[in-house]
Amino acid sequence: MSPTVAPRRLRLGMVGGGQGAFIGAVHRIAARLDDDWVLVAGALSSDPERARASGAELRLDPERCYSDFREMARAEAERTRHGGDGIDAVAIVTPNHLHFPVACAFIEAGIHVVCDKPLTTSLADAQHLQALVRQHGVRLCLTHNYTGYPLIRAARALVEAGELGDVRIVQVEYAQDWLAQPLEDSGQKQAAWRTDPALAGPAGCLGDIGTHAAQLAEFVTGMAPQRISAELTTFVPGRRVDDHVQVQLRYANGARGLLWASQVATGEENHLRLRVYGTKAALHWDQESPNALTWHPAGQPAQRLTRGMASLPAVAAAATRTPGGHPEGYLEAFAQLYRDFARDLRALDQPASVPGVDDGVRSLAFVETVLASASRDGAWTALPTP
Amino acid sequence: MSPTVAPRRLRLGMVGGGQGAFIGAVHRIAARLDDDWVLVAGALSSDPERARASGAELRLDPERCYSDFREMARAEAERTRHGGDGIDAVAIVTPNHLHFPVACAFIEAGIHVVCDKPLTTSLADAQHLQALVRQHGVRLCLTHNYTGYPLIRAARALVEAGELGDVRIVQVEYAQDWLAQPLEDSGQKQAAWRTDPALAGPAGCLGDIGTHAAQLAEFVTGMAPQRISAELTTFVPGRRVDDHVQVQLRYANGARGLLWASQVATGEENHLRLRVYGTKAALHWDQESPNALTWHPAGQPAQRLTRGMASLPAVAAAATRTPGGHPEGYLEAFAQLYRDFARDLRALDQPASVPGVDDGVRSLAFVETVLASASRDGAWTALPTP
Amino acid sequence: MSPTVAPRRLRLGMVGGGQGAFIGAVHRIAARLDDDWVLVAGALSSDPERARASGAELRLDPERCYSDFREMARAEAERTRHGGDGIDAVAIVTPNHLHFPVACAFIEAGIHVVCDKPLTTSLADAQHLQALVRQHGVRLCLTHNYTGYPLIRAARALVEAGELGDVRIVQVEYAQDWLAQPLEDSGQKQAAWRTDPALAGPAGCLGDIGTHAAQLAEFVTGMAPQRISAELTTFVPGRRVDDHVQVQLRYANGARGLLWASQVATGEENHLRLRVYGTKAALHWDQESPNALTWHPAGQPAQRLTRGMASLPAVAAAATRTPGGHPEGYLEAFAQLYRDFARDLRALDQPASVPGVDDGVRSLAFVETVLASASRDGAWTALPTP
Amino acid sequence: MSPTVAPRRLRLGMVGGGQGAFIGAVHRIAARLDDDWVLVAGALSSDPERARASGAELRLDPERCYSDFREMARAEAERTRHGGDGIDAVAIVTPNHLHFPVACAFIEAGIHVVCDKPLTTSLADAQHLQALVRQHGVRLCLTHNYTGYPLIRAARALVEAGELGDVRIVQVEYAQDWLAQPLEDSGQKQAAWRTDPALAGPAGCLGDIGTHAAQLAEFVTGMAPQRISAELTTFVPGRRVDDHVQVQLRYANGARGLLWASQVATGEENHLRLRVYGTKAALHWDQESPNALTWHPAGQPAQRLTRGMASLPAVAAAATRTPGGHPEGYLEAFAQLYRDFARDLRALDQPASVPGVDDGVRSLAFVETVLASASRDGAWTALPTP
Repeated sequence: MSPTVAPRRLRLGMVGGGQGAFIGAVHRIAARLDDDWVLVAGALSSDPERARASGAELRLDPERCYSDFREMARAEAERTRHGGDGIDAVAIVTPNHLHFPVACAFIEAGIHVVCDKPLTTSLADAQHLQALVRQHGVRLCLTHNYTGYPLIRAARALVEAGELGDVRIVQVEYAQDWLAQPLEDSGQKQAAWRTDPALAGPAGCLGDIGTHAAQLAEFVTGMAPQRISAELTTFVPGRRVDDHVQVQLRYANGARGLLWASQVATGEENHLRLRVYGTKAALHWDQESPNALTWHPAGQPAQRLTRGMASLPAVAAAATRTPGGHPEGYLEAFAQLYRDFARDLRALDQPASVPGVDDGVRSLAFVETVLASASRDGAWTALPTP
Repeated sequence: MSPTVAPRRLRLGMVGGGQGAFIGAVHRIAARLDDDWVLVAGALSSDPERARASGAELRLDPERCYSDFREMARAEAERTRHGGDGIDAVAIVTPNHLHFPVACAFIEAGIHVVCDKPLTTSLADAQHLQALVRQHGVRLCLTHNYTGYPLIRAARALVEAGELGDVRIVQVEYAQDWLAQPLEDSGQKQAAWRTDPALAGPAGCLGDIGTHAAQLAEFVTGMAPQRISAELTTFVPGRRVDDHVQVQLRYANGARGLLWASQVATGEENHLRLRVYGTKAALHWDQESPNALTWHPAGQPAQRLTRGMASLPAVAAAATRTPGGHPEGYLEAFAQLYRDFARDLRALDQPASVPGVDDGVRSLAFVETVLASASRDGAWTALPTP
Repeated sequence: MSPTVAPRRLRLGMVGGGQGAFIGAVHRIAARLDDDWVLVAGALSSDPERARASGAELRLDPERCYSDFREMARAEAERTRHGGDGIDAVAIVTPNHLHFPVACAFIEAGIHVVCDKPLTTSLADAQHLQALVRQHGVRLCLTHNYTGYPLIRAARALVEAGELGDVRIVQVEYAQDWLAQPLEDSGQKQAAWRTDPALAGPAGCLGDIGTHAAQLAEFVTGMAPQRISAELTTFVPGRRVDDHVQVQLRYANGARGLLWASQVATGEENHLRLRVYGTKAALHWDQESPNALTWHPAGQPAQRLTRGMASLPAVAAAATRTPGGHPEGYLEAFAQLYRDFARDLRALDQPASVPGVDDGVRSLAFVETVLASASRDGAWTALPTP
Repeated sequence: MSPTVAPRRLRLGMVGGGQGAFIGAVHRIAARLDDDWVLVAGALSSDPERARASGAELRLDPERCYSDFREMARAEAERTRHGGDGIDAVAIVTPNHLHFPVACAFIEAGIHVVCDKPLTTSLADAQHLQALVRQHGVRLCLTHNYTGYPLIRAARALVEAGELGDVRIVQVEYAQDWLAQPLEDSGQKQAAWRTDPALAGPAGCLGDIGTHAAQLAEFVTGMAPQRISAELTTFVPGRRVDDHVQVQLRYANGARGLLWASQVATGEENHLRLRVYGTKAALHWDQESPNALTWHPAGQPAQRLTRGMASLPAVAAAATRTPGGHPEGYLEAFAQLYRDFARDLRALDQPASVPGVDDGVRSLAFVETVLASASRDGAWTALPTP
């Protein structure tokens, strides 16, 4: 029985995520789940009326319901400077095009950032943020939330420990179907901004979920591809961004891979799946059944590793809340990033334990390299060296 | 855009759930997840030192960290009476034998109750609570948490709507293996109290998980068995309660069923599974893969219903937070009861939407009937008419 | 390179299995598959015209197309006696009530028998055959075809080798739905005889598939139950035999079990499933996915054993034809019995390698004990000691 | 009751498939299973001693055990010419490089051919055979055996009937691991010839299983890709052919696809899997679980279509032998081609119902186009127009 006193809850602000949003609500549940954070301020909408109404629904102090994120950054920094209760971090849950200016505003105000992915809509912007983060000494957590799953962390640890041997083959795919029809024409808010290059950036499906797939494969294997050959397709007539992505991957160690992401794959909900084949073992994981990982040692029976098993690498246990057989899911994985980031912020001398601005830069480099290859009919193109 | 102002968070107290407990932490996450509750008081341990330390970890006001639940009931009721901020409800997460006295204390103080199952360790106690609840006009939520799963609610709605036809066969099972060895001899806290009749009651596996299985089958089919033939087994030498349960079920409409619960089923984690076969369709659901339900219409292909599908009964959508393909799990289902109970408490003129004291009574009646049948070598025994 | 000359194909006759039959065609494919048998004679129907026509479809010599099985037994034995080409064995694929007289006729003629299960419609008849087989020194193969699956043989070998530890729990079920409606009223031939006690015997679902389930559990665990408590149900109005079976099982070593068989389980095709939980490991097998077996060692990850794996017990490899990943199924498992029985007949001094008349006797004892228990409201009833 | 007399069994010869071979035994079982064929002659080995010994094991007339396939073609044609019992067809089950000369010899002798895939080791040879087949008026069955699966035929029928809508995405993969190590160095016969360009042709994994994957996708969708971008990899040091294939596919209607084949995918046995996404529905099929097909109509629950269901397209029922729930597998699917080819040979005025020489030509065109693209660093390359 340790006489630990819990550290205070960290104060969170939010930009975006007002009424009608999807990911904002997810961030709020994720922040709340492990009781490390309390939401105290927001620029939930740029429309003042909507900002206030959204804040009221979340029981925010009306004084801290802003409609201008720059004002929010200033005001909250001010509170902190005066020994007060300004936010410790801001969660940016806007459409992609605003990630950059909002992040700039808060970083420059010395406020830590949780940013939805993709970090920005261009590599240049991402690199700018990278520099800014270093300059201001703040931390940035990029919510590549699938890395919060305990079995993904176990997978990474197993690969890192050499249990898989040399990676030979990477198969990663992320299939959805919610954009199989021109949903954006119906005014559906999520579809509208995600298919508008002005708001989402030049990459559609690629930026939205292709980046998740690429990041997950890299997170688990510890390897980024060296060269890629890509094809982008737009199946739905009139759509202004890609809705289907195919990429061939070559790695420095000779490994090969395929990345497939689609938002027009009829019947698929949120099917992110990773398979890695090594010289000593293979692993398979499927986001829609995240509580088990297939681990297949060469020449032996496949094993079903389940979240909660005592024999898993310790990182898995650290990212779980309930015993085996009590399924955890998307929200718990997302919450894990908030839990980890809270720990990071309470020990700023320690290395970060969550994806950050560097991941964002690599992700944008991937996006721009795919765009470049696709525009040259799939010519093999090198990723910039980090 | 509705100008709704969120109702205030309900104030929750907790009895039990101090350091080393399992289900207390689950209740706290569940209460927090949908932001309807805030934990403000606790009798987390009967040891004053431990109660204080546990409270400090949860950031409770030291003044509201009690070591005596009766004192807590008095003090919190007092706060409320003086226009103050006393708890709205108490969560009872102690070993089973304390459910009854704790519930009595709070009900008599006019405080609503969330009680872990089984409600009590005897039918008589359960009936006493039933009367007390009515007398004091409070609400009691019994955490049969598996009823919080959206697809279980969809299943119930489909049966209720007649889509399954007449129920013919019920197959329900709940298999675990964590007590396959005499874990109680090692001092493991959970195993110790759950296998001690003085703390858990006369029913071991039967009370712990057999009741969940029985309640789930009843919840979905809308039918309780009329007569049962039961066998209780204790596999682990020296164990003082059953660790394996087999029950045959006869229903008033002629349906037949089998209930199997075991805590010595090697390799099983928390495998609660329900299959119901009707004249028009069948349904299968598995707690370890809770985001899908197999629905098999007679003479047609089996269908895979997934949480989040637009075509599900509305009750499913009402019990979910994320779109299809973003798996929800045990904690979300548990949270659903807290969310529903908050709604119930804010509209006390409406019927309850969560399992309550009547379910607890029926559950204890089931337990005692199983014990009676088993003690007479499986003689078919009628359940008491409610 | 061994200079082996293949032994001659064994000559098979068949009783039953004419036009419109199901299992006769299965036996013929099974006999043919591994090229150990050739079908040369038949009493395919008791109607002479139909017998001839059925024989012509199978390219039988018209002279050896009999309409009277007794005549066939005499004539074929005669052929053999005169140094000729009489059949080595007869396959009995008639409705159940004829198994006994047909088997008697051929055994008495000194001809080996392959008999579809159940062996007879009464224990007394089965015991009579048991004596007759010994008296005449012939071999009888009872087609408990599910024992022909390589992974079932692997399972048996693993249990026998002690890898599972002491068996604690047996869960076996066999669910179908083809009799969920009164199909017998439509004149469908299979349904008609299987629900007519005069043709099928007093046990409906129990005799048809319940016996398969009981035999499979016994085959794998090496244990028959000592006492059982049973309930038989007839769901379809007007049906004259049971269509749903539930049996509780007690074993001599203290193990417990449940057997469930049903032919009214909506949506189920031929779902025979066995789970055995021991002190050291558990195993799960499902006939509809027969090329994998789940093997779950206590405290370790579940393993997926697949047909064809080098590490399986040798008996598995001996019962398979293709490498792993090339699925084998029902016909191959059935063929395995014919392959094994051919080997048995070529080495009559060796012990039998297929289920035989003793299994038939035990099966009928099981049937009659279930009938007895069910007729006494599920009273626990001992199985006769073999 | 039809008074049908069965047509005589067709007489089959075999070239290759002697002791130690794999696919020869499969062809023999497949030919035998439905009783349409009888094996009567063979050039099972070019070594006379081995040819005789192999023939003896198969109970062949020693006179018809040849060691020279050309002699066999002459002698068997001679038998037929003299009103005798020469073979109706020959099965070619040699290593790839012999397919061409053997096929030439038998076609020129007017004997029908069953040829293992790939048809030849070059497109030119395949085209030569195509011409020869037409010239001599014989039939050639190319054993793309996976097209024999009933649910693959159902899938094709569903696509053809427009139920899937327009095909948008094709994902086909064929993963094995048996060549993950340099097995050829151990002298294992299968590995030795399949990795020797002189025997297998210039394509390793590509020719061996990549062709199966390509053909299956084309069979089901009714579409061949128009252009492809390919990469071939050899993972195992010293290996002389590719052991890993990745191909991007573009179709004339705008559809996109990925084909992945590998023989170094640790843990994979024979994992051929096809997914096709259309505008109205999607389908998924997995060769290792071939008795079910997932059919996912847009906006509706996924359906599990099982072999044997009454509602399947009629072509499925025509390719099955047992009711639903009685799994069929690899051998039955292979047998289906022999059954169909027998029907074709008995009705030579009817169109062929099995893959034939044209499929072989298209397959070799695919192989050569992949080789060409891969040699130009994945440049998009058009397939020759048929």
